[in-house]
Amino acid sequence: MNQVTMVMPAVIGDYTDFFSSKEHAVNCGTIFRGGKEDALPPNWVHVPIGYHGRASSVVISGTDIRRPRGQTSPPPGENAPEFKPSALLDFELEMAAFVGPGNELGKPVSVDEAADHIFGFVIMNDWSARDIQKWEYVPLGPFLGKSFGTTISPWIVTMEALDPFICDAPEQDPPALQYLTEKNRFTYDIPMQVAIRPKGESKASVISNTNFKYLYWTVCQQLAHHTVNGCNLNTGDLLASGTISGPSFGSLGSLLEMSVAGSREVKLEHGGVRRFLKDGDEVVMSAVCEGDGFNVGFGECRGKVIPAFNS
Amino acid sequence: MNQVTMVMPAVIGDYTDFFSSKEHAVNCGTIFRGGKEDALPPNWVHVPIGYHGRASSVVISGTDIRRPRGQTSPPPGENAPEFKPSALLDFELEMAAFVGPGNELGKPVSVDEAADHIFGFVIMNDWSARDIQKWEYVPLGPFLGKSFGTTISPWIVTMEALDPFICDAPEQDPPALQYLTEKNRFTYDIPMQVAIRPKGESKASVISNTNFKYLYWTVCQQLAHHTVNGCNLNTGDLLASGTISGPSFGSLGSLLEMSVAGSREVKLEHGGVRRFLKDGDEVVMSAVCEGDGFNVGFGECRGKVIPAFNS
Repeated sequence: MNQVTMVMPAVIGDYTDFFSSKEHAVNCGTIFRGGKEDALPPNWVHVPIGYHGRASSVVISGTDIRRPRGQTSPPPGENAPEFKPSALLDFELEMAAFVGPGNELGKPVSVDEAADHIFGFVIMNDWSARDIQKWEYVPLGPFLGKSFGTTISPWIVTMEALDPFICDAPEQDPPALQYLTEKNRFTYDIPMQVAIRPKGESKASVISNTNFKYLYWTVCQQLAHHTVNGCNLNTGDLLASGTISGPSFGSLGSLLEMSVAGSREVKLEHGGVRRFLKDGDEVVMSAVCEGDGFNVGFGECRGKVIPAFNS
Repeated sequence: MNQVTMVMPAVIGDYTDFFSSKEHAVNCGTIFRGGKEDALPPNWVHVPIGYHGRASSVVISGTDIRRPRGQTSPPPGENAPEFKPSALLDFELEMAAFVGPGNELGKPVSVDEAADHIFGFVIMNDWSARDIQKWEYVPLGPFLGKSFGTTISPWIVTMEALDPFICDAPEQDPPALQYLTEKNRFTYDIPMQVAIRPKGESKASVISNTNFKYLYWTVCQQLAHHTVNGCNLNTGDLLASGTISGPSFGSLGSLLEMSVAGSREVKLEHGGVRRFLKDGDEVVMSAVCEGDGFNVGFGECRGKVIPAFNS
């Protein structure tokens, strides 16, 4: 394992992962349910969909990620699933918000108060084993396909530091329900990048350039939705955006989307191709906001894939 | 609110909820997907299905539970969902295991070592808002339909105390995959009961008598599955069984099943009927193992429903 000299910026009580990029939701729907028409689940435009993630396996940038083992779908013509190291290991580029002040159980936070409950942001890699996820996720959602590791960048960029980069959020059609309607709707212009550095290579190949501002549901809407049923958030809880994919092919947030579920090769500029991640690959995510005479940087969110346990 | 004089027996880092009762899975499948034939998802007999729950809202017996508000499916003929207090509030009778010694990230625990990682059990009520859950849960699983509150009984019954009540676990057909195959397969004979005490009534009406031993997946299989991808468990983490339903009508673990999704009335022996829970209802779960000249009791897992926020 690499020596990790950095530590987690907070103790994470609960970690929640949203699904707030419309482009990503449409791409996944097209891949898994076929047909762009029905690609979005009917609730998607009304509900900032999210699910509980695993807090214990959120790790700091630089920590190696062991390829998970698990059950995958039965091979064609067979009834029993396979058990093996994941063959379809992927990253997901996300941004995650650390909760500052929490709320009491039973007392929702309104969408217009939500910003006061957010301390700041980190880049997040929601590593995903697509074959494990596909076999397990109906009916109760992703579990072991995600819980083997989630990487965050090393320091928290506060909301105050991001103030100069406030911009309009996408218009919502149909309009959001009342409890999700923001008096002052905004998001942040944060350019983000993903690169892969294969084992033994000195240079990382950039494979995506995207932006936080593409997200359909804002972090204030996520937080208001999360608490509307009375659920309590605590200081240090993490709310992740879900994979950030933009409108163009060069702005996608996962290999699943870039390779169209492994059906196409993704070219690395410094040599080689990928459909999914290989052992030894290091995934490097970064984000820098360029201001007028100053930059606000997130540092790097990096992690190297190491071989599966006992393999 | 009631005065709560008890405190949580451990700080819960992560809470996982399984789905290990075959009877419950078949009942839910029949209700939601129609037809007993396809009632079980194809992965169910191979995967001890589970999902991450919300740790922050797990509360100790005696804590009031506020009825959640949330989005529910669009009314017939309309496109937009409703926003309202849940009209289909339910309980789920479960047993939950507290993790004792944890495991390192990347290092799975084998099924035959799993028992050494379990400290003991509590009764759990996984309160569920069926209308919120139904609208939100595709594709990423239950979220706000569950995260408003989860009640546990006040003390942990250790595995050692349950030793006299070890019994055979149900046979598995098809056989479990190798990593889930136990050299010494066992479970515990723990009779469990659910009662409802309506507002202003002095007596609680018993509506279910069931048993922990009906569960198809054992707690050792759950723990081995949870870690097989390398996921780390920490001391104090909670692994819940999922709703415990037995083979007979009198041994079901939720009102959803007893009322067949609200289509039939459930009679309370001391007067009244229920399809789902009303404000003021107190749900009381209990479990006592009767030994030869001694009992091992779990205490009560109780909680009263109070009206929704701002209603």
